[in-house]
Amino acid sequence: MANPTPHRALRVALLGCGVVGSQVARLLVEQKDDLAARVGAPLDLVGVAVRSFDDPRGYEVDPALLTEDAADLVTRADIVVEVIGGLEPARTLQLSAIAHGASVVTANKALLAAHGPDIYAAADAAGVDIYFEAAVAGAIPLVRPVRESLAGDRILRILGIVNGTTNYVLDEMTTKGLGFAAALRQAQELGYAEADPTGDVEGYDAANKAAILASLAFHTRVALADVSVEGITGVTADDVRWAGQMGHVVKLLAIAERVPLVDGGEAISARVHPALVPLDHPLASVHGAFNAVFVETAAAGPLMFYGQGAGGTPTASAVLGDVVSAARHRVHGGKAPSESSYADLPILPAGEIRSRFQLRLEVADRPGVLAQVAGAFAAHDVSIEAVRQAPEPADGAAELLVATHETSEAALTATVAAVQALPGVIGVRSVLRIVGS
Amino acid sequence: MANPTPHRALRVALLGCGVVGSQVARLLVEQKDDLAARVGAPLDLVGVAVRSFDDPRGYEVDPALLTEDAADLVTRADIVVEVIGGLEPARTLQLSAIAHGASVVTANKALLAAHGPDIYAAADAAGVDIYFEAAVAGAIPLVRPVRESLAGDRILRILGIVNGTTNYVLDEMTTKGLGFAAALRQAQELGYAEADPTGDVEGYDAANKAAILASLAFHTRVALADVSVEGITGVTADDVRWAGQMGHVVKLLAIAERVPLVDGGEAISARVHPALVPLDHPLASVHGAFNAVFVETAAAGPLMFYGQGAGGTPTASAVLGDVVSAARHRVHGGKAPSESSYADLPILPAGEIRSRFQLRLEVADRPGVLAQVAGAFAAHDVSIEAVRQAPEPADGAAELLVATHETSEAALTATVAAVQALPGVIGVRSVLRIVGS
Repeated sequence: MANPTPHRALRVALLGCGVVGSQVARLLVEQKDDLAARVGAPLDLVGVAVRSFDDPRGYEVDPALLTEDAADLVTRADIVVEVIGGLEPARTLQLSAIAHGASVVTANKALLAAHGPDIYAAADAAGVDIYFEAAVAGAIPLVRPVRESLAGDRILRILGIVNGTTNYVLDEMTTKGLGFAAALRQAQELGYAEADPTGDVEGYDAANKAAILASLAFHTRVALADVSVEGITGVTADDVRWAGQMGHVVKLLAIAERVPLVDGGEAISARVHPALVPLDHPLASVHGAFNAVFVETAAAGPLMFYGQGAGGTPTASAVLGDVVSAARHRVHGGKAPSESSYADLPILPAGEIRSRFQLRLEVADRPGVLAQVAGAFAAHDVSIEAVRQAPEPADGAAELLVATHETSEAALTATVAAVQALPGVIGVRSVLRIVGS
Repeated sequence: MANPTPHRALRVALLGCGVVGSQVARLLVEQKDDLAARVGAPLDLVGVAVRSFDDPRGYEVDPALLTEDAADLVTRADIVVEVIGGLEPARTLQLSAIAHGASVVTANKALLAAHGPDIYAAADAAGVDIYFEAAVAGAIPLVRPVRESLAGDRILRILGIVNGTTNYVLDEMTTKGLGFAAALRQAQELGYAEADPTGDVEGYDAANKAAILASLAFHTRVALADVSVEGITGVTADDVRWAGQMGHVVKLLAIAERVPLVDGGEAISARVHPALVPLDHPLASVHGAFNAVFVETAAAGPLMFYGQGAGGTPTASAVLGDVVSAARHRVHGGKAPSESSYADLPILPAGEIRSRFQLRLEVADRPGVLAQVAGAFAAHDVSIEAVRQAPEPADGAAELLVATHETSEAALTATVAAVQALPGVIGVRSVLRIVGS
């Protein structure tokens, strides 16, 4: 049933008109009638802040709406959409919007990972909404399900493929046998990777998302600095080939995990690293630049959310969904869930994180080496699950694959150092964590 | 930030204490503190209505809470959780709860498919919420994403594996080569299928969900009677084997689709039928009794939601998420999105639904038969995409597989009748729709 007395139009201000912003502007115009029906009031785009009137835009916005004065624009809106990205001026503009009584919708993962709790608190104090579906996994409805659908459940672990560039690169390495450099070059040529791919391939982009997800899932303040990060630049064609032979695929995962402590309490771990995922795990069949987030919960069991993690139009879809929610609150009352950190769980130190590991060693092809290696693992209390030797040793050297049972990062690091020092060991070629089963 | 003045406890009434209800009761107790923190007020379970005090329950509810008088219980609650199922007394109880000012959370797909629009309208008129995440795809957050996250997007098509029993049966037929009867018997022995599996294997359960999803996705009143339904009882081991050889897997899909009309308007189609899904489609790797719903949208592109579609604890997770949302509205104001049918699109008649088809024919193994068959397709304007003959004809008969381009159900039906009447055709062994690419 429609709202009995028509509500005044809601003023939407758009900060940024690049790849995402121009699509938000387009959808606001093209979906005008549907949006009004769903909100219960029209949405009026009252201004679009751009850095310069001369910047190129993907969609032609009414020139009368353009302004270079974002600071002024945020003072005259009900809902401010921030898709500029980066820390400043985005942070100042969001806080100003909130102080002026606007709700904020943002796709800015770096800002939320760095200053999320301050912004959430400011929004709470001002009684306005902060929505950020587009900041994690782009188009995929993930933040809302975690904040709302699972509010009666207990999230145990989140495993996310949340960076399309690295998934594309690893998928090409897997399906075409390419090395890292060649796969990255191809990704750059096809527009899946930026000219400077550091933020993606070193795992920093995924780390921002891990911090946001861990905060949401565990109601605890998790900063970017709490996330341990390892990117994919060290993953080799050999790693990927061996993974396939052992029934795994290499994926870069953002992991947020609830960890039981021996004293009966709980801690949380947030981290990003390449991982060996079993081929029959739903995450293993996420190809190309797609994203997917696997959520393990106490009651619902395993869930997975899959879709496009980037791109102007997909990200704009997530932004618009948030705009509708914020706008509905203006019309019908209500507010978004507070991002309170009431649980306030401790962050597990990186050395105490426990995983299963797979090590690839180059060893001298002579009797007794395996016994030496096994002894080094035993000396550090690291239990071996399986050992496999490559079928064809070359030049007196053999490849040895060692999979461990669950052990701590600290114990594993010490074991690697000890193994490396063994006379029969030529080198430890790779160390990868096994996840998912 | 916590609510400054503590809100009074919210009264939750539970109707039904079977597989789902007993788990809802358990989680309300076990998650009490987390729920209170997320809602901003405690949730008090004030009563549990059961058909008989003697019914077995999976979780021991405080006997003081049990009542056989559901009609009274619904008059003294802020939130009524209805997990009895079926049309009556569920419908009367939900409407009474709404009339007494309670919000309703339900898992009752049959009731919503039959009387959803009346219940949505009653809730709207009374200014209370109706939430029903658990009614479609169990634990999977799907209804909230469709209602809220995609509110700024345009849903084009939904393809859902929404019945775990049939997915289990088809998966066993695919992976173990079993016939339908053997796979069903096994599913019954393992508890994946009921003693009377009619509602599942004939597609009626999926049809309820298709009606609910189509209503939500297209803001149009779609009744169960608008859904055309074909179950999996006619799917044979031969169908499944042939599907595999042609790069497909057979899945029972609930489909809700927006269809452009030649006059520039739009209609919608809601249907359930077995379909050939390409092996590289994300739905193809949904195994066992899992559910998954693939949503194609204009802006976000393809999305998929995956998880457990049934079971007491998973379903209870979805129910609790809804309880938190409804409770938050009591504390903070606001309301759930109205399930208005503002778009009011026409339902496409079944005969006009267009699909690609694959027919399996048994034909006489002699020259000229293919020409006859091709002629019959041409005579009905049905364009053939590919023809393939089984490698080993037996007893003078051969198997012929014909895949068509997109055509209407009506044209296909007429073609089948004509083909069946050809002198060289022994029989049309199966007709399956191809979906997904």
